[in-house]
Amino acid sequence: MEKKTVVVALGGNAILQRGQKGTLEEQMSSVYGTCEQLAEMVLSGKWRLVITHGNGPQVGSILLQQEAAKESVPPMPMDACGSQTQGLIGYMMQQCLHNILDARGKGDIPLATVVTQVLVDKSDPAFQNPSKPVGSFYTAVEAEELNERMGWDVVEDAGRGWRRVVPSPDPVSIVEKEFIGILVKNRAIVIASGGGGIPVVRENGQYRGVEAVIDKDLAGERLAEDVGAQVLLILTDVPQVKLHYGKPEEKALSTMTVEEAKRYMEEGHFAKGSMEPKVRAAIRFVEAGGERAVISSLSQAGEALDGQAGTQVVRS
Amino acid sequence: MEKKTVVVALGGNAILQRGQKGTLEEQMSSVYGTCEQLAEMVLSGKWRLVITHGNGPQVGSILLQQEAAKESVPPMPMDACGSQTQGLIGYMMQQCLHNILDARGKGDIPLATVVTQVLVDKSDPAFQNPSKPVGSFYTAVEAEELNERMGWDVVEDAGRGWRRVVPSPDPVSIVEKEFIGILVKNRAIVIASGGGGIPVVRENGQYRGVEAVIDKDLAGERLAEDVGAQVLLILTDVPQVKLHYGKPEEKALSTMTVEEAKRYMEEGHFAKGSMEPKVRAAIRFVEAGGERAVISSLSQAGEALDGQAGTQVVRS
Repeated sequence: MEKKTVVVALGGNAILQRGQKGTLEEQMSSVYGTCEQLAEMVLSGKWRLVITHGNGPQVGSILLQQEAAKESVPPMPMDACGSQTQGLIGYMMQQCLHNILDARGKGDIPLATVVTQVLVDKSDPAFQNPSKPVGSFYTAVEAEELNERMGWDVVEDAGRGWRRVVPSPDPVSIVEKEFIGILVKNRAIVIASGGGGIPVVRENGQYRGVEAVIDKDLAGERLAEDVGAQVLLILTDVPQVKLHYGKPEEKALSTMTVEEAKRYMEEGHFAKGSMEPKVRAAIRFVEAGGERAVISSLSQAGEALDGQAGTQVVRS
Repeated sequence: MEKKTVVVALGGNAILQRGQKGTLEEQMSSVYGTCEQLAEMVLSGKWRLVITHGNGPQVGSILLQQEAAKESVPPMPMDACGSQTQGLIGYMMQQCLHNILDARGKGDIPLATVVTQVLVDKSDPAFQNPSKPVGSFYTAVEAEELNERMGWDVVEDAGRGWRRVVPSPDPVSIVEKEFIGILVKNRAIVIASGGGGIPVVRENGQYRGVEAVIDKDLAGERLAEDVGAQVLLILTDVPQVKLHYGKPEEKALSTMTVEEAKRYMEEGHFAKGSMEPKVRAAIRFVEAGGERAVISSLSQAGEALDGQAGTQVVRS
């Protein structure tokens, strides 16, 4: 049976648990657990895997470190920070997943991380309206000083202090799609587009990094299109998409059509920056020709991929 | 004509010039200049490129940043730091090289960075004798404190202060060699094994990162063997290997056989940690069946690769 390709988009909890400080040991331990789930998909013999992941806490740590050492080491912009997290998280994942597969007799599957740039549009309205909070919290005075000295956009964040915000533009395409495509065609497992990819624009025919953060599920959707995946599997904290989330009439969905998903989104069922981009990515993928998109939790990943759990988003 | 494969090992000056602070702009500018040289090799139509590079200043910066923020962000061991630099330097190189090739009509060549682990032997004597200095300089008092608190080996460095030293074990093999091999076979340009690779040992059948730094030229040699390259090109500050370096009778070599190279090495012509590992890598590569190894400077890279400059190391 010809294997199908699935792009698995992992949430932050796949790498670091809430409340952890973020030692390498802690992160390796979470990643190991995540990779045990991923290994089952590989071992089923039914799937080729392409893996993508978030990088919020890891970029946050780098921004803190950059700031603490800024007198001796020049801080770097967001594109460079993102590239560092792709190296770090990719390393942890490729080591853990290989170790698990090797112990199960599948150590011969080529497996590694590809540093990935994602093209965004210079004229994306997101650049006029930076909205994604990154890094530390500041006082109002510090915020004003950072705005003046660094040109940062800084906003008040839900009463918790002031934070830098950066644009979150829509991903247009995966710059390294042919490179990744070669690997997928040759039965390799690829980790790519980590943290939503390194955001670049095209200017005078040249790619150039920009200070932005791309939503990792929307970037994962582009990746899935660009490698011709049949399924996009988005893993998060909750086992299923819910209507009336947190209210008495809350209702979990085991299936929704693209049309239903659009209606629910318009009705405001899905939280911005949380479930909303996941549903948006799922809709896009199916509309672009994907067989189905699945939203579920890490612990039910395998069953969800088999259609037995999670929320299946289908054409009709 | 069938293309030959060359592994190009870039020195530190390919990424950052001496005296620079290390802003992203400075590094991108150096990398762009380096990639202009590399692009010529690609455009000649004669070579498939696999690129590897050092990461000394970049790891140094990360170690400084980690230390400055250690109260809020747990510092990470050397393997994790190395993985971050692979992401960062790989990103700069793949963006610059693609931009240059694209402007010359070759933007369709798939090109990216593969996060790379390099296996070392747990029983390598280097682990008993840490010798590679990394990171900041300390006072004698700080050095003692770091030794006690962190278990670091700290030594006095040529009158300039105290520094941490880590083991520099010999590379045994490239963990991701099949993954990289698929790409090379399919006409992709690959950046791999940056900073000598992420050092890992094998323990109970599992890979595990270790606190060490692998010499990037020796790792580049392993990479060249593992991808079946015909040529290993090591680029450094000087245009040719020299005997009696810095003395009146100094003599530059345009060719040396493996046998001559071994004799010169025994006679102590090549500085440890500098020219010595380059000559050692060249000898190994040719003895393992490589057509030739070349040691030259970045500015003469193309001619050296064509056999018209640099020092050619050949079987006989």
